[in-house]
Amino acid sequence: MTYCVGVLLQEGLIFASDSRTHAGVDDFATFCKMTVFEEAGARVLVLLSSGNLAGTQAVISRLKQRVETAEPRNVMNVEHMFDVAELVADAMREVDHRDGESLAENEITFDASFVLGGQIRGESCRLFRIYAEGNFIEATADTFYFQTGETKYGKPMLQRVLRNNTSMGEAAKCVLISFDSTMRSNLSVGMPIDFICYRRDSLRVSRRRRFADGDAYFTALRDDWSRRTLAMFAQLPGLEWPDDAPQ
Amino acid sequence: MTYCVGVLLQEGLIFASDSRTHAGVDDFATFCKMTVFEEAGARVLVLLSSGNLAGTQAVISRLKQRVETAEPRNVMNVEHMFDVAELVADAMREVDHRDGESLAENEITFDASFVLGGQIRGESCRLFRIYAEGNFIEATADTFYFQTGETKYGKPMLQRVLRNNTSMGEAAKCVLISFDSTMRSNLSVGMPIDFICYRRDSLRVSRRRRFADGDAYFTALRDDWSRRTLAMFAQLPGLEWPDDAPQ
Repeated sequence: MTYCVGVLLQEGLIFASDSRTHAGVDDFATFCKMTVFEEAGARVLVLLSSGNLAGTQAVISRLKQRVETAEPRNVMNVEHMFDVAELVADAMREVDHRDGESLAENEITFDASFVLGGQIRGESCRLFRIYAEGNFIEATADTFYFQTGETKYGKPMLQRVLRNNTSMGEAAKCVLISFDSTMRSNLSVGMPIDFICYRRDSLRVSRRRRFADGDAYFTALRDDWSRRTLAMFAQLPGLEWPDDAPQ
Repeated sequence: MTYCVGVLLQEGLIFASDSRTHAGVDDFATFCKMTVFEEAGARVLVLLSSGNLAGTQAVISRLKQRVETAEPRNVMNVEHMFDVAELVADAMREVDHRDGESLAENEITFDASFVLGGQIRGESCRLFRIYAEGNFIEATADTFYFQTGETKYGKPMLQRVLRNNTSMGEAAKCVLISFDSTMRSNLSVGMPIDFICYRRDSLRVSRRRRFADGDAYFTALRDDWSRRTLAMFAQLPGLEWPDDAPQ
């Protein structure tokens, strides 16, 4: 499984992805699911991938090769984020076209999907969710974050805390707690967590971190959160029952 | 969908169930998914049901009829909670045997499942999870709560807060917050919530409540929790970045 989150805030974008891949409980590995394309001062593109690893790697490799060979239209030279989303979708369909039939013979489908976000100079920050079929949706002020993979355990925290105008600092903590909640419940989502806070109009990736197992900050955040949550329950109003009264 | 939770605590048992059933988004209704069998001073049995409503109702009706007709072995006269679990399982298999073939013709399976808990005089409190096939597991001090239905959204809160020795009052709040998290994310889980706190050795149901939409306590609890959560995020340690330093 996988857990990826992309958040579009007024202050910028947050991206986070776990790095566990598995084919059964006795065959798991670590792969970074976050890919960055950057030209400092001009564009920052971040792709979070989920689904079959062979499929997502094939898509990423195609996108990279086309930048390296300076194809007329590649993710580093098209004008809009929308164009980038289309290029990703095109690459997905090519891989599906190439592999789909062979996969289908073994009843496997091409299930790669992506969260794409970033900023190209001249545009504001944008965030997309690209489905396995290559169609995609874009985040708005109403629906400003996308999750992929094992999304349910981590959703209540995002839903309760995040607003489009939440500060980057608060949102970062919230996303990390959402990862903690997910990893506690699903063994197929695991550390390290790759993490980027992109500040609007900075047009460079200056805040990128990888939280490895035992990371001091992540551990402190998680423990602090759990401790405060327990303490908070004691402060919430209690249920009163008729038989509470002295007899 | 459905959301049911049963918790086995040192102080007793907590049961909670939502009451929404649906067959598509335009065909939903309210049904209580909590059934109580009680002989004050002798036994308390609580069944939480999930899955196809026709199936769970058929099982409950069989169990009730056998009590009414005073069958030699029914849920009100067998000696152990384990025996009760077997009687529930037997009834499930009977219903499956009767309906299974007709359902299969329309590619529907008998998917009823239950959480069963309670206490029979002479035994301690016990809690079971009975699968659709009629086999079942029993809660222990290590794994002391069972969820059925739409379990993922509400699990992180239970997992973070509940311990086998958590007080009944704290656990009750935690279970209700877990319901709030679930209902916010899944439209097929809905109020009212049927709720029982059973105190060990009381052998009667004296603390039962139904939280309907707009219930003053539930609304206050939910709002208080959300407010405190937001405030708590501000207090958690923030991430520090190299470019935070003055230039």
